[in-house]
Amino acid sequence: MIVELIFVGTELLLGNIVNTNAQFLSEKCASLGLSVYFQNVVGDNEERLALVLQTALERSDVVILSGGLGPTEDDLTKETAAKVFGLPLLEDGRAREMLEQYFSQQNRVMTENNRKQALVPQGAIVLYNKNGTAPGIMIEKGQKTAILLPGPPDELIPMFRDQVVPYLQGKRPETIRSVMVKICGIGESQTETMIMDLIDSQTNPTIATYAKVGEVHLRVTAKAKDEKTAKNMMKPVLKELKKRFGDNIYSTEEEETLEEVVVHLLEKKKLTLCTAESCSGGMVASRIVNVPGASEVFKAGFVTYSNKAKRKYLGVNKHTLQKYTAVSREVAKEMAKGGVFETDADICVSITGLAGPDGMDDKPAGLVYIGCYYKDRFTVEEFHFKGNRSKVRTLATIRALDLVRRCILNDGMITKGEK
Amino acid sequence: MIVELIFVGTELLLGNIVNTNAQFLSEKCASLGLSVYFQNVVGDNEERLALVLQTALERSDVVILSGGLGPTEDDLTKETAAKVFGLPLLEDGRAREMLEQYFSQQNRVMTENNRKQALVPQGAIVLYNKNGTAPGIMIEKGQKTAILLPGPPDELIPMFRDQVVPYLQGKRPETIRSVMVKICGIGESQTETMIMDLIDSQTNPTIATYAKVGEVHLRVTAKAKDEKTAKNMMKPVLKELKKRFGDNIYSTEEEETLEEVVVHLLEKKKLTLCTAESCSGGMVASRIVNVPGASEVFKAGFVTYSNKAKRKYLGVNKHTLQKYTAVSREVAKEMAKGGVFETDADICVSITGLAGPDGMDDKPAGLVYIGCYYKDRFTVEEFHFKGNRSKVRTLATIRALDLVRRCILNDGMITKGEK
Repeated sequence: MIVELIFVGTELLLGNIVNTNAQFLSEKCASLGLSVYFQNVVGDNEERLALVLQTALERSDVVILSGGLGPTEDDLTKETAAKVFGLPLLEDGRAREMLEQYFSQQNRVMTENNRKQALVPQGAIVLYNKNGTAPGIMIEKGQKTAILLPGPPDELIPMFRDQVVPYLQGKRPETIRSVMVKICGIGESQTETMIMDLIDSQTNPTIATYAKVGEVHLRVTAKAKDEKTAKNMMKPVLKELKKRFGDNIYSTEEEETLEEVVVHLLEKKKLTLCTAESCSGGMVASRIVNVPGASEVFKAGFVTYSNKAKRKYLGVNKHTLQKYTAVSREVAKEMAKGGVFETDADICVSITGLAGPDGMDDKPAGLVYIGCYYKDRFTVEEFHFKGNRSKVRTLATIRALDLVRRCILNDGMITKGEK
Repeated sequence: MIVELIFVGTELLLGNIVNTNAQFLSEKCASLGLSVYFQNVVGDNEERLALVLQTALERSDVVILSGGLGPTEDDLTKETAAKVFGLPLLEDGRAREMLEQYFSQQNRVMTENNRKQALVPQGAIVLYNKNGTAPGIMIEKGQKTAILLPGPPDELIPMFRDQVVPYLQGKRPETIRSVMVKICGIGESQTETMIMDLIDSQTNPTIATYAKVGEVHLRVTAKAKDEKTAKNMMKPVLKELKKRFGDNIYSTEEEETLEEVVVHLLEKKKLTLCTAESCSGGMVASRIVNVPGASEVFKAGFVTYSNKAKRKYLGVNKHTLQKYTAVSREVAKEMAKGGVFETDADICVSITGLAGPDGMDDKPAGLVYIGCYYKDRFTVEEFHFKGNRSKVRTLATIRALDLVRRCILNDGMITKGEK
């Protein structure tokens, strides 16, 4: 089955935003065993959008469009698709109700232009939107399907996962299953070198590598007549990957994030965490708090960007700061210890570094120390990250979360060994 | 002049990488006043690439292709373009020399497949590549131009800036300038309603709206014979927008972020900030620290996700928590006051809310109180955000930064009025 993607939005043509939906949808289609031959980006222009949609419907089975479903005059994806399919637009009662609810919950008056979001091409399947105002739409005609999704990723992603994936799976004769193996602490090219032989020798299941910021993901995909066979086919491959990458693999769950793994490990071991952050400025705490229920394991977070704050809230010694400067192994250590002392948490992770753009005291931008204090033991790791300020901070945050994970895991293993 | 973009690479169709070249080239074209109506992504497949290129040459004046110029068998952009234009490939002496130099500098032997990178369609302009092996190519035929660029951004970006921009500027008679007006605190549809008359009546300058998460941006663009005329044409439009949106406009600088505006305001007024965050979990602090030099104005940040932490680090009263619960106007107030008391900062912004997915104590997910304590005055605002946990937290963070900005600005205005 051939899928074609159309991204609608003048903001994409003007380069105002990066088209992350393109990657998301392409990756999901690949994991469903669907072939994507063409992606198109077109502006909020009826004539050109109609042209692109018609061409896509001629050469592909399923056309997925994103963007242009909102309330403004510019938004005309739905109107154009309805014309191309020759269908009138009718108001959908439930969509209208959800819109009204949305506005009344926010104590806002629904303006007239918002009403058009409840209009749906006759006979279309409506994909109700829990995360925004515009519902998605699926139009089927003959062997062709057009799927219209809202542009904002936080609306598109859940709608695609929950409503479009099951629909597309139902359209395929064979079963495709895949497992995502998530790796932290090893770079993309090293990962590829480590599994080159597997990639070359495998046709089913296949292994594909995806470089993410600070992580590498490996997607193992099997095609088979049913789910059980597909899963069995993947088992030896997954076993081999676990053998090669060990605890660099933090998860094999599609939706599980690194912070979820950390929070769930803390919950399982009945441990509490504290964060002591300098250059990351609260990013580690923020990732932890992004996991619902984190309050049970997260004692408190300190953002001590200045030296004064490091001394006052984490008890970092004045002389340590003078002798080694703030960006040092010693200060990372004292920050982590200070966090545990101050909050009585079981573990404290600390970050101090130079996010850039400039270095300091002969130390280069990108130099970051990450410390972890757990059961009277210190671990401090030194990193030299490459990239701009935001990238250095993000990479440091990922490595800090990973360090907490490894410290807990290693302790568990030692205890086990001693029994 | 109409430009069309074609990105060649199966890795884009599989979602292995994000297409950042699309944003870069689109933004550059927009800033040069070139219209981009279509972007295409196609795999390393001769037939489909030829189809896309032919279509693009029919409807656009300049077609920019990126990717597929490398040494491997998959790379066939140049070969396909030469066929479409009906031109033979000939070896370019200088390109060959540069290739040989490149390999000898790296102490590597040049394999036979690398030689094909020195082949160029007859009569084409060669864009020599200082940052990689594959040169770029410009083919002109009649009124049409095809520009072939290497895919890696660290090769494409300098080649485009240094060699393609001057070429494209030489092709244009008029000058284009634009200003981005950034708005916080008003939604997209309300913003559009407020300027519908302006959008409808303007053809030059034009106004375009861009919905960002928690913000709306308006791009005002003028075309004129020179820069000065273009800027003068925009003045009355910008004045009118400022009149209508007042201090909802936080910036008119293209690259300036909300957190930069806040940090620069703090610097200008010689004020210091402290953050007291519950559900946002450090996101406000993290945005502040993302501005280089923030340590001068940022005293410290507390992530007090649990009630215990709110009491211990911010001195929130036990009875206030019991009587009103953590998600309340009263607790937001005490958190902000506690932050100032604890750190001696001039301003403290506090956030307490239910990020979801679940509500609590009859309070719905999305309910957030944002407080600001400044010069013995409290401001607490109540919000009902919609979206998933991550979106609620992001929206709260943006509104918190904006509240700090407004509190500082309003104080300034009051002082001015009292003089």
